[in-house]
Amino acid sequence: MDVKFINPFLESVTNVLATMAQTESKARKPILKKSTIALGDVTGIIGMSGEQVKGSFAISFSKEVILAIYQRMLMEEAASINSDCIDMVGELTNIATGGAKNLLAEKGYEFELATPVVVSGGGHQIDHMSKGPTILIPFTSDVGDFFIEVSFEAVT
Amino acid sequence: MDVKFINPFLESVTNVLATMAQTESKARKPILKKSTIALGDVTGIIGMSGEQVKGSFAISFSKEVILAIYQRMLMEEAASINSDCIDMVGELTNIATGGAKNLLAEKGYEFELATPVVVSGGGHQIDHMSKGPTILIPFTSDVGDFFIEVSFEAVT
Repeated sequence: MDVKFINPFLESVTNVLATMAQTESKARKPILKKSTIALGDVTGIIGMSGEQVKGSFAISFSKEVILAIYQRMLMEEAASINSDCIDMVGELTNIATGGAKNLLAEKGYEFELATPVVVSGGGHQIDHMSKGPTILIPFTSDVGDFFIEVSFEAVT
Repeated sequence: MDVKFINPFLESVTNVLATMAQTESKARKPILKKSTIALGDVTGIIGMSGEQVKGSFAISFSKEVILAIYQRMLMEEAASINSDCIDMVGELTNIATGGAKNLLAEKGYEFELATPVVVSGGGHQIDHMSKGPTILIPFTSDVGDFFIEVSFEAVT
């Protein structure tokens, strides 16, 4: 998968967290994901489908990191990943992917977004079933680390 | 959400399990899902997006049920939910949703499928972030019970 598909997601995630949660974040080196890795405690997933490409995006947070982001975005504390927090992860997933979709449309790659799904429960694993590779990108932020995953395949 | 969006999924899931895994299954009464329910040990998820509707579909199995289906489909035993089993859940998700997509296209509802994502790890929960309701449909089968969930929203 070409890096041109990855960079719009990195840029959009960083933008969304900065503007919506006053959280500075920075993408680390992308990794070709070769095995299933147990991710965070809550993961937003969204499907993408277009005439040229289709795929899936996931953003995964530990409980500590998402509760810190929750406090910044909603100006209130939560002790656990409650339904408001799950809704917020769905919203972040939607907005981050929407931003990447717009950046990719400028480069001539059009796709539509499905509605997000949020998975919670400690130690869950995610496997993207696209025929393309899955790229895992760790992020650092001032509230802790989190991960995104992007997988695309060409539509034939 | 109209029942006309649900029935094609019920029909397609029953068909796929009968033809691919020689497994008879029967949908029970659909339930409007009001709270997050911890589902099975492995869940296939797929996003759907079209000009009229977008949404998500999930099919969730306990370890015991999916290993029984695995044995029937692949003619070999697995002791745990390994990567072949995860691939099989992705494939079942894709084919079941593809069948429903074709049935809905005959009724004039067109959408494209994203690539599936498979979530594993005991006791995970799934929240569909569509603006429409989430319909949970329990199934009985000769290897045990499993669940599907369908959520659609109108594209405005």
